[in-house]
Amino acid sequence: MNLDTHHSVRPILWRDGGLWLIDQRLLPQRKEQVVCRDVAAVAEAIRNMTVRGAPAIGITAAYGVVLAARDRFDTAPGSWREAIEEDLQLLAGTRPTAVNLFWAIDRMRAAIADCDGGPGVRLLEEARSIHEADIADNRRMGQLGAALIETPCAVLTHCNAGSLATGGFGTALGVIRAGYVTDRIRRVYADETRPWLQGARLTAWELLEDRIPVTLIAEGAGAHLMKQGEVGWLIVGSDRIAANGDVANKIGTYGAAIAARHHGVKVMVVAPTSTIDMNTPSGAAIP
Amino acid sequence: MNLDTHHSVRPILWRDGGLWLIDQRLLPQRKEQVVCRDVAAVAEAIRNMTVRGAPAIGITAAYGVVLAARDRFDTAPGSWREAIEEDLQLLAGTRPTAVNLFWAIDRMRAAIADCDGGPGVRLLEEARSIHEADIADNRRMGQLGAALIETPCAVLTHCNAGSLATGGFGTALGVIRAGYVTDRIRRVYADETRPWLQGARLTAWELLEDRIPVTLIAEGAGAHLMKQGEVGWLIVGSDRIAANGDVANKIGTYGAAIAARHHGVKVMVVAPTSTIDMNTPSGAAIP
Repeated sequence: MNLDTHHSVRPILWRDGGLWLIDQRLLPQRKEQVVCRDVAAVAEAIRNMTVRGAPAIGITAAYGVVLAARDRFDTAPGSWREAIEEDLQLLAGTRPTAVNLFWAIDRMRAAIADCDGGPGVRLLEEARSIHEADIADNRRMGQLGAALIETPCAVLTHCNAGSLATGGFGTALGVIRAGYVTDRIRRVYADETRPWLQGARLTAWELLEDRIPVTLIAEGAGAHLMKQGEVGWLIVGSDRIAANGDVANKIGTYGAAIAARHHGVKVMVVAPTSTIDMNTPSGAAIP
Repeated sequence: MNLDTHHSVRPILWRDGGLWLIDQRLLPQRKEQVVCRDVAAVAEAIRNMTVRGAPAIGITAAYGVVLAARDRFDTAPGSWREAIEEDLQLLAGTRPTAVNLFWAIDRMRAAIADCDGGPGVRLLEEARSIHEADIADNRRMGQLGAALIETPCAVLTHCNAGSLATGGFGTALGVIRAGYVTDRIRRVYADETRPWLQGARLTAWELLEDRIPVTLIAEGAGAHLMKQGEVGWLIVGSDRIAANGDVANKIGTYGAAIAARHHGVKVMVVAPTSTIDMNTPSGAAIP
């Protein structure tokens, strides 16, 4: 299958020595990119929600370390590896709840320790590797998840677990992309996802950009659609998965899952193993 | 019990020979009244959603007939009872789905046939009677419904079935008023009720006006509150009730009811017998 036919949204791009981010605060009215050329701009982009979604934040921070290293090496070639720690702390403080952020910074810190002399291309390669691995993981999850859908159907999704939340392709929307390409998914219903409207502003926009049929609904309409037999699967991402399998995700996911159970609609949670937090025993312990 | 301590919102008032309506399109930002002094203004107020809610529309139309009769009698004292039929048709065409509207117009038509000579006070008395009976019914339903709540609790409501939807006091919010006065209800969670936000704009405003503690929530949060044990009852109104008991109400009611069943939360539908449509066999037949 060709997974690239419906995969045009590129939320994070490294180009001409700078980091280009789609400004998600302006979607869907305007698609504009913010160019970050130093670590302060990257930190601000994470803090002010230009970029959101745990994997996307981690990748953005990794590129932020590349920019920091360049500047630190320019000003203090002999001690840049010590001086950059301040920048890593700056990035780590931007979104204290994002596990992926700390994980990405730790990866970059290890790469810094690995550098001979200056950062050279080593750090950029590491950031690119984090980014590309995320997309590859999403594509693989998309294929695995889509294969579970036996009967062609419409699906319901909640919030945005798409290209815009990740390095690209998405987790829940990755399954939806792969399912659409392989004729397993015919239509997507997207909850608008109150109060912040990630479904209306991001998911609907992203699927329209990629020419995947999407109908935006008030989340109160989801159970009614299930009752009418319009929904085969509920497919969502996850913020965190506890050791016992409990899933934490955007408010409204739980109600949608109860409606799915009531109607015999299957539920798929799409997330990489990094989302599983073995230190959190159950959902009750998730803040 | 004194039901008047938390019953200050008067959506429909007859004063100085005119009909005063709270303009519900401006709530909650501004509380302004529209004064209708002829039947055309009343018809427009129904059509443009200045007033909404099936009982409120019926009462408004009844007062509209009073205004129409005054003008018709002024211009054609000998044939006003024939001429006014045009006005009744005008009112009937404003909201073709509202059963209460046709019922109220039929009541006024019968009163017109009953008039000796001019309309005198007969028609105003009939309109007032319809209005006052609606409030009395709501107060009685409020007492009956509140008495079913055995353990003091917080309740969840959806859309607006309050003073603003009726002649006053409300159906679902009537039970909530009576329950609050009698210490059975401690707090109200109000679904914002997408897409039109009747819960956010009307229910939350109305309860705040009457000093009843209300928390506005995105409807996605309702199931989560139930899981946490925060909700004792789901209390809603109804647009129409089929002969088999199936309830039609604002989109989102069904999902809330499924979540209630899943958590053992009781559900109360508050509606007068006029909402029951014996000609509709089941919910499947409700358009």
